[in-house]
Amino acid sequence: MNQNLKHLIRPSIQAISHYQVVNAEGLIKLDAMENPYTWPDEIRQQWLQLLVTTDVNRYPDPIARILHQPIRESMGIPDDMAIMFGNGSDELIQIMAHAVAESGRTIMAPDPSFVMYKMIASFAGMSYLSIPLNEDFSLKREETLNMIRKHHPALIFLAYPNNPTGNLFDDAIIEEIIRTSKGLVILDEAYHAFTGKSWMSRLGEFDNLLVMRTFSKLGLAGLRLGFLAGPKELVNEFDKVRLPYNINVLTQVSVKFTLEHMDVFEQQTTTIRQQREVVFNALLAHDELTPYPSEANFILFRAPQGRADDIFYGLQANGVLIKNLNKPFGPLADCLRVTIGTPQENEKFLHALGRALDHH
Amino acid sequence: MNQNLKHLIRPSIQAISHYQVVNAEGLIKLDAMENPYTWPDEIRQQWLQLLVTTDVNRYPDPIARILHQPIRESMGIPDDMAIMFGNGSDELIQIMAHAVAESGRTIMAPDPSFVMYKMIASFAGMSYLSIPLNEDFSLKREETLNMIRKHHPALIFLAYPNNPTGNLFDDAIIEEIIRTSKGLVILDEAYHAFTGKSWMSRLGEFDNLLVMRTFSKLGLAGLRLGFLAGPKELVNEFDKVRLPYNINVLTQVSVKFTLEHMDVFEQQTTTIRQQREVVFNALLAHDELTPYPSEANFILFRAPQGRADDIFYGLQANGVLIKNLNKPFGPLADCLRVTIGTPQENEKFLHALGRALDHH
Repeated sequence: MNQNLKHLIRPSIQAISHYQVVNAEGLIKLDAMENPYTWPDEIRQQWLQLLVTTDVNRYPDPIARILHQPIRESMGIPDDMAIMFGNGSDELIQIMAHAVAESGRTIMAPDPSFVMYKMIASFAGMSYLSIPLNEDFSLKREETLNMIRKHHPALIFLAYPNNPTGNLFDDAIIEEIIRTSKGLVILDEAYHAFTGKSWMSRLGEFDNLLVMRTFSKLGLAGLRLGFLAGPKELVNEFDKVRLPYNINVLTQVSVKFTLEHMDVFEQQTTTIRQQREVVFNALLAHDELTPYPSEANFILFRAPQGRADDIFYGLQANGVLIKNLNKPFGPLADCLRVTIGTPQENEKFLHALGRALDHH
Repeated sequence: MNQNLKHLIRPSIQAISHYQVVNAEGLIKLDAMENPYTWPDEIRQQWLQLLVTTDVNRYPDPIARILHQPIRESMGIPDDMAIMFGNGSDELIQIMAHAVAESGRTIMAPDPSFVMYKMIASFAGMSYLSIPLNEDFSLKREETLNMIRKHHPALIFLAYPNNPTGNLFDDAIIEEIIRTSKGLVILDEAYHAFTGKSWMSRLGEFDNLLVMRTFSKLGLAGLRLGFLAGPKELVNEFDKVRLPYNINVLTQVSVKFTLEHMDVFEQQTTTIRQQREVVFNALLAHDELTPYPSEANFILFRAPQGRADDIFYGLQANGVLIKNLNKPFGPLADCLRVTIGTPQENEKFLHALGRALDHH
């Protein structure tokens, strides 16, 4: 590329590398917090009957109005709160960043947490500050509040439960964060389906609180639908930055259908939560591993020092793909994350893990 | 909203209003350049057979690899050029803007042209400069080249054919623009299906040329798929800013299917081009109207001074929705734009137009 053209691309973009997605072909895929269950045949046939009457030649409804009422009811969104849809939560994070992005503005989120907060801050040309966590991945109250007072972040993202650690942050500290922040605090409840707790009903108690959720972990990762709920004045401003036709028509129709069959997905979720206990206890039974308690559909565990990569590749060689989060000296040194699969998949994972550990 | 929070939203976002989409319920919809034809039953059944085997619980392939080869072949993309997909062209424009957005950087496009160039410049915090056109909506050679020399735009968007005017800009002037610009020139070929001309085969002749297309006008507006083709070094940088799972799995599968049935869409396109002549001649037959020759699936026409709004609402009262572009004193004063529909829809439009004109 000639120098003039190279100069065009912002240095912060040139500096980053592509988001890496591992090729999972032929592997048991326990790396991406996907719901392992496909749709039962009967449900699938009913869904097709709906798609056959869907015309793809017209632009999608820009506000996806068929989804508002069913999502409000299903997700318990307070009546006086506004909602906005994104092409996955990723796009919602991007929209919020762009709405506030100005020189010197900062996004803040715990470290470790969902990687897109930092990436999107960089795409939007904003500063990013990591909030360090305790060793058990809980929030450090004083340090966090002081950081907020000092740096005045425009946006604070708190994943609840947190990814990749699986824990729920303390509600009292979250409340102090919301009260201390002069910017917005977004509770990212992507893993809501796997925990009993939520901040949704507290929307409106604070004028700077928003809640974000996605249908991805519930079993619709391929469809891409996330939503943001919060005070009208804020959501309306964010909505101006949203590209008007961001939610395609098949996703709109399919998610509406899904909401009418939540019993199927709730059954799947219940099984996943039960299996989480099975996997956790099996990990705990290995003396050399430290699994962290999880309220999500994955479990983070720490391998003996220096062995995470070996275990990761050992699992892969045995046909199981999990996520390798090991970065020496960081808070995730020696850490691996496994998504809860079907009972059969989990069994294969545990078996392969046993072999990988023995191999030492 | 309290003042602290209001202050968070960038002033340029607060200043703009929402993208307005008119409710078309019950109206013949000739406002949005949609292909009026739905899929034949046989094609629809084949499509469903494909969807029934598609699992929505997994994240979509981040690079949509099933689409690369068929799109390259179908669209004649030179082998040495890279391609990238967007959730509609809108997202591709946004990605390019974000990759170059820095204080003082400018996007340039003709006026009038596609409104999203300007809106997205504003979302990205960039400056926007309009290139004025001649009265027949052709490019002003000297003035345009001087503007480029003076303002060094990072991105120049040229819709080819242009929307909402329908004309193709002069190829020799476009070439001079590309050679004069030290930034990137993006030929937006959204309406490629309705013209014989394209810059696709000239990719690679200039290191700052990119070509963008969409499947929306071909009959897949509801699915949201656009693509960008251009030099690898550039597309790879843009691709870093792309959200990894931006193209949902149903769109990937459906577009692949569409590419295997291009004959159906080409037939539809041929009919639309024939109907464009019918509508153009009928508009021309009204002495008080000035239709502009079009290489796209719509026709821009100028009403007698001060009468565009009346005609627009008269058409709506008669069940036909077109696009009212009238803004007094601007280049589109008294202008309306009609999308070419089915022969029956066009007949109803022309009949309603006759009534609206007589009504005076």
